[in-house]
Amino acid sequence: MFDYRRTHTCGVLTRSDINATVTLSGWVHRRRDHGGLIFIDLRDRFGITQLVFDPAKVTTHTFTAASRLRSEWVISIRGKVIARAEGMTNPKLYTGEIEIDIAELEILSAAKTPPFSICEEETDVNEELRLKYRYLDIRRGDVARKLTVRHQAMLSTRNYMSSNGFLEITTPILAKSTPEGARDYLVPSRVYPGNFYALPQSPQIFKQLLMVSGMDRYFQIAACFRDEDLRADRQPEFTQIDLEMSFSTPADLMILLEGLVASIFKECNGIDLPRPFRHMRHADCLENYGTDRPDLRYGMPLTRIDDIAERSTFTIFKEQLSSGGVIKALCVKGGAEISRKEIDGYTQFVSAFGLNGLAWMKMQEDGLSSSIVKFFSPELQQELTARLTIEQGDLIFIGAAAEDRVNQALDHLRRKIAKDRNLIDSNALEFVWVTDFPLLRWNAEEGRLESEHHPFTSPHFDDLSLLEQDPLKVRALAYDLVLNGYEIGGGSQRIHNSELQEKIFRTLKLSPKEIQEKFGFFVEALQYGTPPHLGFAFGLDRIVMILTKTENIRDVIAFPKTQKASDLMMQCPAKVNPKQLDELKIRAETTEITWL
Amino acid sequence: MFDYRRTHTCGVLTRSDINATVTLSGWVHRRRDHGGLIFIDLRDRFGITQLVFDPAKVTTHTFTAASRLRSEWVISIRGKVIARAEGMTNPKLYTGEIEIDIAELEILSAAKTPPFSICEEETDVNEELRLKYRYLDIRRGDVARKLTVRHQAMLSTRNYMSSNGFLEITTPILAKSTPEGARDYLVPSRVYPGNFYALPQSPQIFKQLLMVSGMDRYFQIAACFRDEDLRADRQPEFTQIDLEMSFSTPADLMILLEGLVASIFKECNGIDLPRPFRHMRHADCLENYGTDRPDLRYGMPLTRIDDIAERSTFTIFKEQLSSGGVIKALCVKGGAEISRKEIDGYTQFVSAFGLNGLAWMKMQEDGLSSSIVKFFSPELQQELTARLTIEQGDLIFIGAAAEDRVNQALDHLRRKIAKDRNLIDSNALEFVWVTDFPLLRWNAEEGRLESEHHPFTSPHFDDLSLLEQDPLKVRALAYDLVLNGYEIGGGSQRIHNSELQEKIFRTLKLSPKEIQEKFGFFVEALQYGTPPHLGFAFGLDRIVMILTKTENIRDVIAFPKTQKASDLMMQCPAKVNPKQLDELKIRAETTEITWL
Repeated sequence: MFDYRRTHTCGVLTRSDINATVTLSGWVHRRRDHGGLIFIDLRDRFGITQLVFDPAKVTTHTFTAASRLRSEWVISIRGKVIARAEGMTNPKLYTGEIEIDIAELEILSAAKTPPFSICEEETDVNEELRLKYRYLDIRRGDVARKLTVRHQAMLSTRNYMSSNGFLEITTPILAKSTPEGARDYLVPSRVYPGNFYALPQSPQIFKQLLMVSGMDRYFQIAACFRDEDLRADRQPEFTQIDLEMSFSTPADLMILLEGLVASIFKECNGIDLPRPFRHMRHADCLENYGTDRPDLRYGMPLTRIDDIAERSTFTIFKEQLSSGGVIKALCVKGGAEISRKEIDGYTQFVSAFGLNGLAWMKMQEDGLSSSIVKFFSPELQQELTARLTIEQGDLIFIGAAAEDRVNQALDHLRRKIAKDRNLIDSNALEFVWVTDFPLLRWNAEEGRLESEHHPFTSPHFDDLSLLEQDPLKVRALAYDLVLNGYEIGGGSQRIHNSELQEKIFRTLKLSPKEIQEKFGFFVEALQYGTPPHLGFAFGLDRIVMILTKTENIRDVIAFPKTQKASDLMMQCPAKVNPKQLDELKIRAETTEITWL
Repeated sequence: MFDYRRTHTCGVLTRSDINATVTLSGWVHRRRDHGGLIFIDLRDRFGITQLVFDPAKVTTHTFTAASRLRSEWVISIRGKVIARAEGMTNPKLYTGEIEIDIAELEILSAAKTPPFSICEEETDVNEELRLKYRYLDIRRGDVARKLTVRHQAMLSTRNYMSSNGFLEITTPILAKSTPEGARDYLVPSRVYPGNFYALPQSPQIFKQLLMVSGMDRYFQIAACFRDEDLRADRQPEFTQIDLEMSFSTPADLMILLEGLVASIFKECNGIDLPRPFRHMRHADCLENYGTDRPDLRYGMPLTRIDDIAERSTFTIFKEQLSSGGVIKALCVKGGAEISRKEIDGYTQFVSAFGLNGLAWMKMQEDGLSSSIVKFFSPELQQELTARLTIEQGDLIFIGAAAEDRVNQALDHLRRKIAKDRNLIDSNALEFVWVTDFPLLRWNAEEGRLESEHHPFTSPHFDDLSLLEQDPLKVRALAYDLVLNGYEIGGGSQRIHNSELQEKIFRTLKLSPKEIQEKFGFFVEALQYGTPPHLGFAFGLDRIVMILTKTENIRDVIAFPKTQKASDLMMQCPAKVNPKQLDELKIRAETTEITWL
């Protein structure tokens, strides 16, 4: 039998290997017949090496076999590394200075013609077809490289966390339905018909219990599940870098996590991240960027101009102010070149976020101009110019509405303008800790306070006295890490003191019965001696997306699902044998699925 | 606020720290009031440190607080490390030479009285109660230590595999129901009612697809699921170290895996394993130990004595032989001391495995004795004595029945005698590769051949010609790794050649329709250029059980389930909100569960 064990991969041979006899195995990437010779580009996930079959040097049998080769056949060869002829080298290829003069060939496996080309890295083949043949899509190299980065990120995480005294502890997948949060995936029990497990939305309960159990420092790269109607960047199963620690503080945890992120970026991308990361209070984020996940790779902060608008004669602004709204503006450097038509486009764009109308002014050579400038006295114009640092050639957009609406619309507008005007340095990595989230929010429908995160989040220790008088002013010891405008993780200090916990329950107007139903055994567990503890969870998928510069979450998952949560390759979900349902004592109405 | 961040854990302070001022935080393990002083053993998962509250040195407030402390309260203290008085040191404790002279105390969290003592490592509290309060059970130290070893084993695996070029690639949990194998856990789809995902029994299909996709070397520490009625050492979700590689051979894979196992044992237990491991052919295992997972920590091989029995006048043996049965014996060194009553016990024991009767002979000073010795001539007795190396004071047991039955019964008997007679060195680690499994077996019910493993397992290349003439003689390129009588892993070379694959399908008498239904898209995938590949899967839970010397799988899992697949702590499976079932369009009959 031909010994197909490789001496080298297809990505490593160079001039220094000339004259070596090598065995390579891989896939036929391209075949060219040229001047009586057969050239094969042999591919594996490490690279491509050129093979040459010379009829003067191989047996007729081998040459005939070589002439039968087609794309994606798997072969193994033995031959000698030789220099490519002058002018035939390929500087784009690591192995581009050599080729293999073939002595022996073994065809290991023939291949049907693939439904799309593997040769092209960029492809316009539709994603559904690529997902159906995911095992071929991965061969295209781009996905394989992203999966490699994902592996490196996971390994780097594990070694960093472990070297900092964290233990990876696996928590159950067959868990219990949570009373709040997103929709659960359920798993029927056969032993107890009509009872169900739920796949965990996160290991939150388990990791807090591990702190109660004294495990001190826990982490896990954990599978999490949510049965939601998927947005483009979501998957029904996703992965969290999940961690929890006892007897520490948010400040210390943040330093530790900055080290983790730095280690991931260093080991995956060779980047040295400057540390510490900056911090921004939640209220300041909203005020200056309209969002709690600001993209700081570019400027254009939102600037409040309530006081200026108040003194203008523009009734639309004044009416908004008197009905409790706000007026905020952002300044687009050089934006005076933006056409009236483009401005109409932006006006249309913000209307999708509930903002009816978008005022604007351009700074021309002779000062501010637009249809609303006349409502602003020269003094007010000067004040506006100073506050927004408007220079000649700039454009400002102004939104006026309820604060939430202005924030949301101008946040999206700011992101869109940054893209449209190429303001984003694609290599920039702008991390920011968002801190001082509010602990509670007012649920107007139910007429009661509710937790911004969950009722186990600790209030800021300085704000405890506010809990009764002014609960909406109480800050939580919660913190998010934002990178380039994406929330890549979040966490909080948890309540470890049962008296404080009861006070929070009272503030939320939860009855003992409700507490029991919603949190049951977990509240009991907290009463057996709970250490102060705090934790965090990173979205691994998002981090790998940023590391590999993709906007498509499916690129960083080996076997992803569609937005309808189906797997086009396995064709699942699928009907099952009726006997399986009988055993579970469940009945189901069946929908037929038509597969690609 | 009291700064509860620790300068040290409770397991590290020694004489060399004397006079240092330290902050420790942890749980009150024990309190003793003695000579006007209060002594507290403070515990965390790293150890125990003794604290001393001296009323002459602390404030009245602090001393009063110390006198309120009860077991499992969480406290933080500041104080000075001092030497224990002469005669008060505790050599069993790493920190036993010092104690902390307390200056300040903060009570972080009070605790209810736990339902069982945390102080005792050995406990006779029933396991159900301990599982209900798992978070307290883990505090007992023993479970925490086992989870620590599990963490180390996983990290060691990941670093070893990664340094050998394997990428960890996460495969889906929401997968497709497999047509064969154990019972699946199902997950109803909401988007496609009446259709189901299945939780994977292993990533087998995915890992082979990753080889088709050219990923070259894959591994994963993977959650696997089986909805079976559980044996004591099984869990509905269990963990596999799963791997697959291309362009290699079983011999090379075995060397690589021996390195993995050695690295795990070295890093977890500090043990240098001798390598290479021994190999044993499947047929020899059955012949000499009656099982394909022989425990080689002790002797007592099974010895076939068909030819001797044939020449005896013992009709029971002769009848067995003439009806196709076999006669095997094992020799218990020093077993002549075993009483008649104990022998009756063993006879009873083997009857559970279908062996009706167990013959025996003892070697006394005047030769073999037992009620059946008379059927054996002196020459035959001599032959028997020589073959089994029977010495004075030994006992032999003899089983006669169909080969499978004798093997199964004597295997269990051998294991039981080894335990009963303390023949097992609890530190011994006896690894053996079991090779040359048969590829096929005869399914008498269905009157056809079926795969011993699965139809993608490669036949031994030397046996290809036997496939048509004598298929039951064909060996598979499959191999198990057995440690101390447990199968800790198994794997095989897979078929990569579609012609050979079709030949196997024909041998199994599978129609194209059946192939499509059973293996569908996977068979298609194999036709697009499949490299030779092979793989393996270790049972992580079993390995950690051996590393931590426990026979209870629940000891090595943070939150395990009972044999009825229920979680006593979370009380799940559980009823869900009817709205959840409506969304899934399923109806279910409900069983009430009574929880502890």
